[in-house]
Amino acid sequence: MYPNSIKNLIESFKILPGIGEKTAERLAFSVLEFEEEQAEFFSQSIMEVTDKVKKCKNCNTLTEDDLCFVCNDENRDNKVLCVVEDTKSVFLFEKLGTFHGKYHVLDGLISPLDGINPEDIGINKLIDRIRNDGFSEIIFAFKPSIEGETTSLYIKKVLDGMNIVITRLASGVPMGADMEYVDSLTLERALMDRKEIE
Amino acid sequence: MYPNSIKNLIESFKILPGIGEKTAERLAFSVLEFEEEQAEFFSQSIMEVTDKVKKCKNCNTLTEDDLCFVCNDENRDNKVLCVVEDTKSVFLFEKLGTFHGKYHVLDGLISPLDGINPEDIGINKLIDRIRNDGFSEIIFAFKPSIEGETTSLYIKKVLDGMNIVITRLASGVPMGADMEYVDSLTLERALMDRKEIE
Repeated sequence: MYPNSIKNLIESFKILPGIGEKTAERLAFSVLEFEEEQAEFFSQSIMEVTDKVKKCKNCNTLTEDDLCFVCNDENRDNKVLCVVEDTKSVFLFEKLGTFHGKYHVLDGLISPLDGINPEDIGINKLIDRIRNDGFSEIIFAFKPSIEGETTSLYIKKVLDGMNIVITRLASGVPMGADMEYVDSLTLERALMDRKEIE
Repeated sequence: MYPNSIKNLIESFKILPGIGEKTAERLAFSVLEFEEEQAEFFSQSIMEVTDKVKKCKNCNTLTEDDLCFVCNDENRDNKVLCVVEDTKSVFLFEKLGTFHGKYHVLDGLISPLDGINPEDIGINKLIDRIRNDGFSEIIFAFKPSIEGETTSLYIKKVLDGMNIVITRLASGVPMGADMEYVDSLTLERALMDRKEIE
């Protein structure tokens, strides 16, 4: 029914996460209303991220160069390492602008149920880096989940005996949340991790 | 902060309707996980719709050929013409599979407040076609709105005196709707257009 080129574009949009048939159709038709330069820019951007973007040699953050913008920055605190589960997390923290240490990006989290083991997420590269780079603190900034906990505990165990402080992000009630909408696991953790008001 | 190519792709996604900063970022990162062939297919699809898709000479439906698949189909009912506001509507009706007449696609609807006049939406081409093609019924299938009504009334007036039945889609309570969520304008129209049960 649809002309071939429109059908192909709809199929392409459907590969994207959270985009179903109807949304894909709506997006494809909106591309038809693009100026030619906009379409070219869009089309080229897709090929360029595919061709140019690679992992930072040092920390795995996605970059177009050998080293990412953080590893290239001489003003960062070389003593603190924030370990995250994907590159997106790096940009989330950088948007805050309050963390001045270094990052290391894992390739996801350990999840034995899904067959994802330590060697699958690049743990060895992380351990080597920690052994060589002289960090005094390692922060685990994983999502609060079984996988996040498993990954934290595994790395902590491997690092056992090294003179490094190991921390994780605080879990608790999100700022601005209505208490009645906070789930019980979160509330339990917030109570357990309660802080003295000084 | 983002590598240039990722930034460009985020900007491209943001041009699409209903896609804000956060969603654009999520989509751009998901493209990074595409296989190279998927990315190529996506990129090419965008250029192909831009290069290949044009309006059917006869009815304005988007097509890659001179005539669209409906105008090319000799088994359609040449007596009934369904006038719609955009090509998307043609595909919506074709998916039903219950309409066997022809279509004519306007370039939107008349909207004096937005400075959109009859000549801006290609009314003349429609009128010429109706005068030449010998239809016995014209169906207006516009969205129920001031603009839809204005466009219907305008065309009806121009066709005044021709021996053609002019109809519009029924308005009323959508199938499966809860009565309490039906807005008052819709309910009013449903009451006004009530049908005798035979």
